[in-house]
Amino acid sequence: MSGEIPHERHELKEKIHEIIFEADTPVGKVFDVALLIIISASVVVVMLESVMPLQERFGQVFDILEWIFTIVFTIEYILRLYSVYRPFKYAISFFGIVDLLSILPTYISLILVGSEYFLIIRVLRLLRVFRIFKLGHFIKEGALLVKALRASRARITVFLTFVMLLTVLIGSIMYLIEGGVDSGFTSIPRAVYWAIVTLTTVGYGDITPVTPIGQFFSAAVMILGYAIIAVPTGIVTAEIIKEGRNMTNTQACRYCGAEGHDDDARYCKSCGAKLNER
Amino acid sequence: MSGEIPHERHELKEKIHEIIFEADTPVGKVFDVALLIIISASVVVVMLESVMPLQERFGQVFDILEWIFTIVFTIEYILRLYSVYRPFKYAISFFGIVDLLSILPTYISLILVGSEYFLIIRVLRLLRVFRIFKLGHFIKEGALLVKALRASRARITVFLTFVMLLTVLIGSIMYLIEGGVDSGFTSIPRAVYWAIVTLTTVGYGDITPVTPIGQFFSAAVMILGYAIIAVPTGIVTAEIIKEGRNMTNTQACRYCGAEGHDDDARYCKSCGAKLNER
Amino acid sequence: MSGEIPHERHELKEKIHEIIFEADTPVGKVFDVALLIIISASVVVVMLESVMPLQERFGQVFDILEWIFTIVFTIEYILRLYSVYRPFKYAISFFGIVDLLSILPTYISLILVGSEYFLIIRVLRLLRVFRIFKLGHFIKEGALLVKALRASRARITVFLTFVMLLTVLIGSIMYLIEGGVDSGFTSIPRAVYWAIVTLTTVGYGDITPVTPIGQFFSAAVMILGYAIIAVPTGIVTAEIIKEGRNMTNTQACRYCGAEGHDDDARYCKSCGAKLNER
Amino acid sequence: MSGEIPHERHELKEKIHEIIFEADTPVGKVFDVALLIIISASVVVVMLESVMPLQERFGQVFDILEWIFTIVFTIEYILRLYSVYRPFKYAISFFGIVDLLSILPTYISLILVGSEYFLIIRVLRLLRVFRIFKLGHFIKEGALLVKALRASRARITVFLTFVMLLTVLIGSIMYLIEGGVDSGFTSIPRAVYWAIVTLTTVGYGDITPVTPIGQFFSAAVMILGYAIIAVPTGIVTAEIIKEGRNMTNTQACRYCGAEGHDDDARYCKSCGAKLNER
Repeated sequence: MSGEIPHERHELKEKIHEIIFEADTPVGKVFDVALLIIISASVVVVMLESVMPLQERFGQVFDILEWIFTIVFTIEYILRLYSVYRPFKYAISFFGIVDLLSILPTYISLILVGSEYFLIIRVLRLLRVFRIFKLGHFIKEGALLVKALRASRARITVFLTFVMLLTVLIGSIMYLIEGGVDSGFTSIPRAVYWAIVTLTTVGYGDITPVTPIGQFFSAAVMILGYAIIAVPTGIVTAEIIKEGRNMTNTQACRYCGAEGHDDDARYCKSCGAKLNER
Repeated sequence: MSGEIPHERHELKEKIHEIIFEADTPVGKVFDVALLIIISASVVVVMLESVMPLQERFGQVFDILEWIFTIVFTIEYILRLYSVYRPFKYAISFFGIVDLLSILPTYISLILVGSEYFLIIRVLRLLRVFRIFKLGHFIKEGALLVKALRASRARITVFLTFVMLLTVLIGSIMYLIEGGVDSGFTSIPRAVYWAIVTLTTVGYGDITPVTPIGQFFSAAVMILGYAIIAVPTGIVTAEIIKEGRNMTNTQACRYCGAEGHDDDARYCKSCGAKLNER
Repeated sequence: MSGEIPHERHELKEKIHEIIFEADTPVGKVFDVALLIIISASVVVVMLESVMPLQERFGQVFDILEWIFTIVFTIEYILRLYSVYRPFKYAISFFGIVDLLSILPTYISLILVGSEYFLIIRVLRLLRVFRIFKLGHFIKEGALLVKALRASRARITVFLTFVMLLTVLIGSIMYLIEGGVDSGFTSIPRAVYWAIVTLTTVGYGDITPVTPIGQFFSAAVMILGYAIIAVPTGIVTAEIIKEGRNMTNTQACRYCGAEGHDDDARYCKSCGAKLNER
Repeated sequence: MSGEIPHERHELKEKIHEIIFEADTPVGKVFDVALLIIISASVVVVMLESVMPLQERFGQVFDILEWIFTIVFTIEYILRLYSVYRPFKYAISFFGIVDLLSILPTYISLILVGSEYFLIIRVLRLLRVFRIFKLGHFIKEGALLVKALRASRARITVFLTFVMLLTVLIGSIMYLIEGGVDSGFTSIPRAVYWAIVTLTTVGYGDITPVTPIGQFFSAAVMILGYAIIAVPTGIVTAEIIKEGRNMTNTQACRYCGAEGHDDDARYCKSCGAKLNER
């Protein structure tokens, strides 16, 4: 098939792909930054549309802007489909779906009034902001954070499971204590909601204990939360320190290619070959 | 006594024990997961029963579900007692008591109306969710966390004792400052409750200082709490880092004695000699 | 003078001193624990006295208990003065003053009605709870915490100074934004109080921004507070890790007595002498 | 030009410069501390002026003090311009602009009534408090903190970007859930404000979910925030530990090359050889 395409068209396709998908060329950088600005503007418009007084005054302006953004994004979506090597694979990828869902609601609103609820999906396009990290050295730092969080996934799961059981227990006990009184603890689910609000130290104050025994128990829960909040912090901190340490020796063994040697390593830990003196 | 039991019955006992108490065999895994789902469902029912509108509409459904769960748990409890080698030891163990208390309230409710308060005990069965950790590698991570918390127990006790004394002091001073005014500080215990709410950064806002001097003192308490909250975090983090370090390869090289090898190390990083296979 | 004291009296003095001031002998331990329980009870009574309904019902009981505690503490105070080697030095020490102030208000209340405000000082006696730590290995852990906090004093001072300046700046800006509106920001001091409540993530909600621009600025302040709260935690954690590391090698040099050697140290870092193999 | 200035005047210029700009000489120290006290007093006056009752009673006193401070600061500003080698460079530096803006509003208030809003700028002069750190060893600690924060800038940027996107997403979803009901979620920006208040665990409680599904989603957000708050702490802690380690003795033994000696080490911990005096 690629043989049938005239040479110029093939070149155009390559050029478009370079501009839209790559961020390393100057023109690709400009495109990425411009796209980012347009997406941000479009999200701001969606947000402002939800503010009643503004909607009443600038409703028409918002509508026009909405259509401009939609048309721009539609053209971009078509160009992406056209220039990519495997259009179908892009279409079913995370960003492919988000890109499609970001333009659909506006078209649907022509037929179905009140599809404003779906405009929210465009917010997800903001995730593309992370593409800009390709432009700098931020990507390495981001990767380290993701790696640290992924490495501590198991511990955090154990911890969160424990915390959730604890909140159910605390909430139930609190319901027994404060349930009868005219306080906010009208049901166990609400009491569990209160327990989460308290243990995470958010503390809205929409539901608060009113009986002395309830306040005493709450105080105990807070002191407990004090000790508990230290755990996820400790887990993540330990992992970040470890990842940061592993990243210091960037040397790869010349024989087996193994990486992640310690700073003081003089021999490859994987094949025993001598590493370069540093 | 075991000699008097017919061979088949003995085998049955073994089989039941394997299913109920062990999580390593396929059928044991299935049982554990099924039990976990039933317990969760039963806890959800207890929680929903406490929601007034739902109780009014689905009260009868809840009652029937309650009895089904109770009968299932009763059969499970009897099987546990039957299949375990030392029934009495199980009966007085933590989970043995919880299992018994999780079925008793429903039976008692036949005689004693209003024993709903004891249904709460069933929530404790949720703790059995941690059995599922046996199924994966989560148990190792959980053990590390428990070990880290246990190791820092002494420090956390010292810290919490200090914090509790501090809250009594702060609460008393605040009662002297705001006690006369029409604010929430109506007694020293309430003021201590406020001090705990503030120092732990929960901050409900149900009791807040209204006098300028009270607000000034509160601000100082918050700044203090800022520095204090760092302490438990530091304790637990230090311990997790230490535990994590200890859990990595404890092998010392047989030739040069170097330690601190990575988990995936097969050769000594210091002299290049082969390490023992693990 | 000590020569004039009969032998028995001298022995009695020694005995009393051993009981009251030392916590290492069995009888000293018993005394310490008993004293701790009495002080706790006395503090609980002071706290309960401030609760209006209890005061009305049990006022007389509280008064009697108050006098019993005061007499016990007075006897204890006299015995301390009698048995200690340098009575004056004890009298002007921190605990000496606290001990005196803990009994005075009750006597003063005979002449001056309404001296209840001074009863608060007795709360300080609770600090004596830390004496019980002498009984276990808690003292070591407490010392490590104190050492870690003392070592990070300079950094925490710099940090808190910066935070305080920041809150004045943030509070002033917020006053300019929200000052005119009918919100809680009625003066700069109040706005600074709000800034501290927000930055420390306490978040009472007694003063909250009502204008969109005020809420936008608040959100920025919170995100900032997010990054800032990490700093004291980091300082203290780093220090605790360091202290913990230093405490692992407990060996003192046999020649110069220097301590605090690293775990992998084979020679004294202070005089160069060989340390014991471990 | 410097040749034309009489010797005495040149010396005077040097003397003034030494007093005002240097903090190492005794007289420079005295000047710095005095200036700090005056600035603090002036900021306190600005703050108190905003308190209505005080303004009504002491308005005139505040005005007089305001003028005294302004005149003192004006003289100081002129002396700074006079004594510095490059007056223009100082004038356009951060502190040069702050110094100018700290005296202008008072003069403008003679012509323009209601320029009180600009008085706020004087608060920025408080930043000069950090000059006092030159007086002690605090500067080293402050530098370490700044260095640690600067080193973790990239990671914190990545993290904060992610958090901000997350809050927009969470806020939008919450607006869809609670938007119709009579709760505080009247627009997406307000819902995003709520999301930030919740994720940072500030938790004012001015906007709280009222529907069960909204409370369930909030609880999930809080649990998420629990895990997320650990990230900045981990980043900063890891950096402070690293900086702290780098600041200790960087000396390597001349005989065996061992590094990582303590600050107080005088002999190599590995081979016992004498280290260089520092």
